[in-house]
Amino acid sequence: MIPAKLQRLEEKLQTWRIEAVALNAGASLTYLTGLDFHLMERPVVLLHRVGSTPLLILPELEAAKLDHLDYPIDTCFYSDNPDQWPQVFKQAIASLHLLETQIGIEPGQLRLLEYHLLRTVLSESAFTDGSGILAALRSIKDAEELALLEKAVAIAERALQATLLQARVGISEYEFASELVMQLLRHGSETNLPFTPIVASGPNGATPHARPGERRLTSGDLLVVDWGARWHGYAADLTRTFGVGHVAQQEQEIHAIVRQANRAGRTAGRPELTCAMIDEATRSVIKEAGYGAHFTHRTGHGIGLECHESPYIHAGNQQLLQPGMTFTVEPGIYLHNQNGVRIEDDVVITESGCRSLSSFSRELIYIS
Amino acid sequence: MIPAKLQRLEEKLQTWRIEAVALNAGASLTYLTGLDFHLMERPVVLLHRVGSTPLLILPELEAAKLDHLDYPIDTCFYSDNPDQWPQVFKQAIASLHLLETQIGIEPGQLRLLEYHLLRTVLSESAFTDGSGILAALRSIKDAEELALLEKAVAIAERALQATLLQARVGISEYEFASELVMQLLRHGSETNLPFTPIVASGPNGATPHARPGERRLTSGDLLVVDWGARWHGYAADLTRTFGVGHVAQQEQEIHAIVRQANRAGRTAGRPELTCAMIDEATRSVIKEAGYGAHFTHRTGHGIGLECHESPYIHAGNQQLLQPGMTFTVEPGIYLHNQNGVRIEDDVVITESGCRSLSSFSRELIYIS
Repeated sequence: MIPAKLQRLEEKLQTWRIEAVALNAGASLTYLTGLDFHLMERPVVLLHRVGSTPLLILPELEAAKLDHLDYPIDTCFYSDNPDQWPQVFKQAIASLHLLETQIGIEPGQLRLLEYHLLRTVLSESAFTDGSGILAALRSIKDAEELALLEKAVAIAERALQATLLQARVGISEYEFASELVMQLLRHGSETNLPFTPIVASGPNGATPHARPGERRLTSGDLLVVDWGARWHGYAADLTRTFGVGHVAQQEQEIHAIVRQANRAGRTAGRPELTCAMIDEATRSVIKEAGYGAHFTHRTGHGIGLECHESPYIHAGNQQLLQPGMTFTVEPGIYLHNQNGVRIEDDVVITESGCRSLSSFSRELIYIS
Repeated sequence: MIPAKLQRLEEKLQTWRIEAVALNAGASLTYLTGLDFHLMERPVVLLHRVGSTPLLILPELEAAKLDHLDYPIDTCFYSDNPDQWPQVFKQAIASLHLLETQIGIEPGQLRLLEYHLLRTVLSESAFTDGSGILAALRSIKDAEELALLEKAVAIAERALQATLLQARVGISEYEFASELVMQLLRHGSETNLPFTPIVASGPNGATPHARPGERRLTSGDLLVVDWGARWHGYAADLTRTFGVGHVAQQEQEIHAIVRQANRAGRTAGRPELTCAMIDEATRSVIKEAGYGAHFTHRTGHGIGLECHESPYIHAGNQQLLQPGMTFTVEPGIYLHNQNGVRIEDDVVITESGCRSLSSFSRELIYIS
């Protein structure tokens, strides 16, 4: 029996009149097959043609990963000598009779490494952008996936709670981040965290993607903590902003504005609204408070096997929300060289509205 | 002043008669610029043309990362709406007058996402494989890089030592791996570990890339632990194999064979030998002991900003070793459904030979 998700892929492919897909190591391959491969210098490619047995091109040393598969899969193995790889790809393509077909690929995932190996025998025109098909499948979570996401969120929330018990004025961002990672693991997260936590104090908080550094938490700081956990592959992604010691009036005000924007975004979603509308519901709160120019990124992104995936919540995205879609709502205000605030939750679109998967307090909590 | 590493890139490019490079987020971009960007759905691309100021295409929200650069860089920022990206790439390419040049790219790193954005105005023939140039630069470590690698190795070794103090028969692979990750962070590793530790007990050890699971350490097991630390971006990558409780004669024998192969490989290197010769020196020990078919992967891979990089140590690689090259020596024997052994060290080629950066005991240590 072909797995249910491959079956659903086949239905989508037939609607779009695409005969096959070629996917390298990454979330879509994992989603469809249940197999987990690192993206590395050795290419791993799934070729799946509608109605055929899925075929995996992979290094010999990964063979044992297929031991417990409960569905048939064909394989083409190669050795560690890259000179042999083109021949293996050629045979794989021939065995599936892919020479006259349209093959969907994911440009955001496929590297020229795999593309060139596929191009050994296929022309440029054989390929078509299949990202939309895979995004459409993956963006609608079933009950099992939602349960995994909720568990990842619960792990992340408990880990932050435990970390806050240890946090004090004077510890460094790095020390906070290390403690948080330890607590994530202690509370059950898979060791491949969705991302390195962002722990950004004072002016560092003005960089949305700051890396934790040597700076010590100082009274007067705002502290942005953006962290996540992983459970059975599924990623939680949350942010809270704390006060350190005593925090000035302006900091308290921008925290309150972002909190209000977060609430507006969290509660705005329902089926048939567009992604752009959620962005607008969130952004308008910050704009009206006079900080529009300081909310420098989109409102959010989908979450699932990838920490960033479809749907993307930005002003230009007219995509319609559907029940089962999960995404972040993460408004922020960033004041260059001063501070930053971000409050991020993970939500799911339901039949009639939107439900937050995360519930950690959004108040301005103080670290003393 | 242009950074020294960009200067050396320019010299190499001129030798190879390539005018420019286009690099997306990844180790080469970090190596050349000192800037660290995640590979994500938003493309970050460095365009560098010999004699010009380097140009970075990046999202607006990453702007603050450039605040503390001590050399000039030009920038093209874009917003979160992907519809605007092609125009930004077009302008960047025009501003560097790249329309008639040869541009080196890295097929193992560049995705079709960035490639298609570059192709908006450039033809397929504008691009040439520049991987060899970047690998040649990055594979020779200077004294500063070696010091960072040695520190990463030291962190990894101390973390394993601390983990072994906690390890007992009956704990799960996952528990061992979590403790190890915590110890890596406690001992100072950067939180973005080079990879999730492999902790593979009994039959799981027969899969070289196993993920830690629920299986509990059981007397009679061999336990493969493949782990690493990161320090200022540089990755250590080590493996040791332990006995759990009492281990049978055959397990002890294959451990001794792999240990002998590891020693042969660690001591074989010197300038002007080929990578293939190191593979042969290592592999021949295992072959002569009758387990050649069970050493299913290459002997090693380069280490640096990437955990797997050039030079690759396999039978087909006639590349010459040079002083400053750093790579792993990691022979293994894998007996399907039974067990596995791997012993991995990180070494550097010196003026006259080869020095191991790692020194953790290679004896068969027992967990009881």
